[in-house]
Amino acid sequence: MRIGMGYDIHRLVEHRPLILAGVTIPSERGEDAHSDGDVLLHALIDALLGAIAQGDIGTHYPPSDPKWKNVSSRKLLRETLERVTAAGFKPGNIDCTVILEKPKLGPFRESIRASLQEDLQIPLDCISFKAKTKEKQDATGKDLAIEALATVLLLPL
Amino acid sequence: MRIGMGYDIHRLVEHRPLILAGVTIPSERGEDAHSDGDVLLHALIDALLGAIAQGDIGTHYPPSDPKWKNVSSRKLLRETLERVTAAGFKPGNIDCTVILEKPKLGPFRESIRASLQEDLQIPLDCISFKAKTKEKQDATGKDLAIEALATVLLLPL
Amino acid sequence: MRIGMGYDIHRLVEHRPLILAGVTIPSERGEDAHSDGDVLLHALIDALLGAIAQGDIGTHYPPSDPKWKNVSSRKLLRETLERVTAAGFKPGNIDCTVILEKPKLGPFRESIRASLQEDLQIPLDCISFKAKTKEKQDATGKDLAIEALATVLLLPL
Repeated sequence: MRIGMGYDIHRLVEHRPLILAGVTIPSERGEDAHSDGDVLLHALIDALLGAIAQGDIGTHYPPSDPKWKNVSSRKLLRETLERVTAAGFKPGNIDCTVILEKPKLGPFRESIRASLQEDLQIPLDCISFKAKTKEKQDATGKDLAIEALATVLLLPL
Repeated sequence: MRIGMGYDIHRLVEHRPLILAGVTIPSERGEDAHSDGDVLLHALIDALLGAIAQGDIGTHYPPSDPKWKNVSSRKLLRETLERVTAAGFKPGNIDCTVILEKPKLGPFRESIRASLQEDLQIPLDCISFKAKTKEKQDATGKDLAIEALATVLLLPL
Repeated sequence: MRIGMGYDIHRLVEHRPLILAGVTIPSERGEDAHSDGDVLLHALIDALLGAIAQGDIGTHYPPSDPKWKNVSSRKLLRETLERVTAAGFKPGNIDCTVILEKPKLGPFRESIRASLQEDLQIPLDCISFKAKTKEKQDATGKDLAIEALATVLLLPL
């Protein structure tokens, strides 16, 4: 059995979509990034890579490489899951938290979980998505950024 | 077996008590909140809900609902533990960290753990409370906020 | 089985080395601290102490005690591992994340993991080091601080 934890932050800017686990959230601003900026999947990928001790998302998908420009993070998640399998593990359960001032993310919880399930192929009751605000504090609280935390338990295949 | 992680932040304001796991800490300022603002229990409740993938504290106890005004978070924790039981799990161990500039929380560690044990009903050596400062950085470091992180391991009943 | 999570932050100042898991990273600035300021080991020690519910790094090594001035955090990690053994556990795997704007830490990953392995005495594929930036946000993003998160799974001896 293994555990991993991932953290990610992206700036919020205009003229970019806000994407979480591949789901586009209606929002005036979205994640600034070289890739699709999917802060939730980036934290989750880092948690998975951490649990198998195979570097981090920057190791495998360096932002300087044009190959990853605007690439869907779901593709990166699926590749990461192949690494997890190759290492002899499968996800037991995952728990994700996105910290964002607005819009409210509760209404998108089930779409996000369904999207995660498509890629993770584990029971829905092992896939958690939680939303928090930062109570107007710091960059995220001032609506300038979005943060995500993910934790994952891996079981042997 | 399941894992979960919770995060919470509250602003610190005058004329409010500082409450951690139901223990009132002598302090010039306390957590601003609709409920009792117990940042530690909110992070723990979110970790428990995350581990069983049943939404987050905002799903079950929306701050817009007057029903939860000034409600004790210990009551919400006990309700959450009933959900954990109903899902077929019990807490194995929990590890909580509160980040606060002042006052020092070390002297209250054992009261906080004892209070957590009353609700969790697990051995004391499975209940961890840790305190950190934010080294004068950001909102919490400037004494404007308090943050909490909680992680939990659930075992099958 | 037990889990623990640790968080630490230090200010970055001139005329101090930047030390991560005992490895000195070439940098214009390093961690401000009473001890060697090894933010990564401090988060890891807190995760280990949290998993066995034996307080936090401040409990065992109070910064006010001159005994710990400039002490190597590797020594504190080894003492903590003795506590873990005495409690009947050993580390299963650890996953660490350091958040720092610059320099880039990727090139030091393997030195850091090798140093951690010397102290932890577990297989290298159970020791994860990940690096993130804070995307220019907040104190760490403005190059004023360095943060670390660590999560650990303990197995019975």
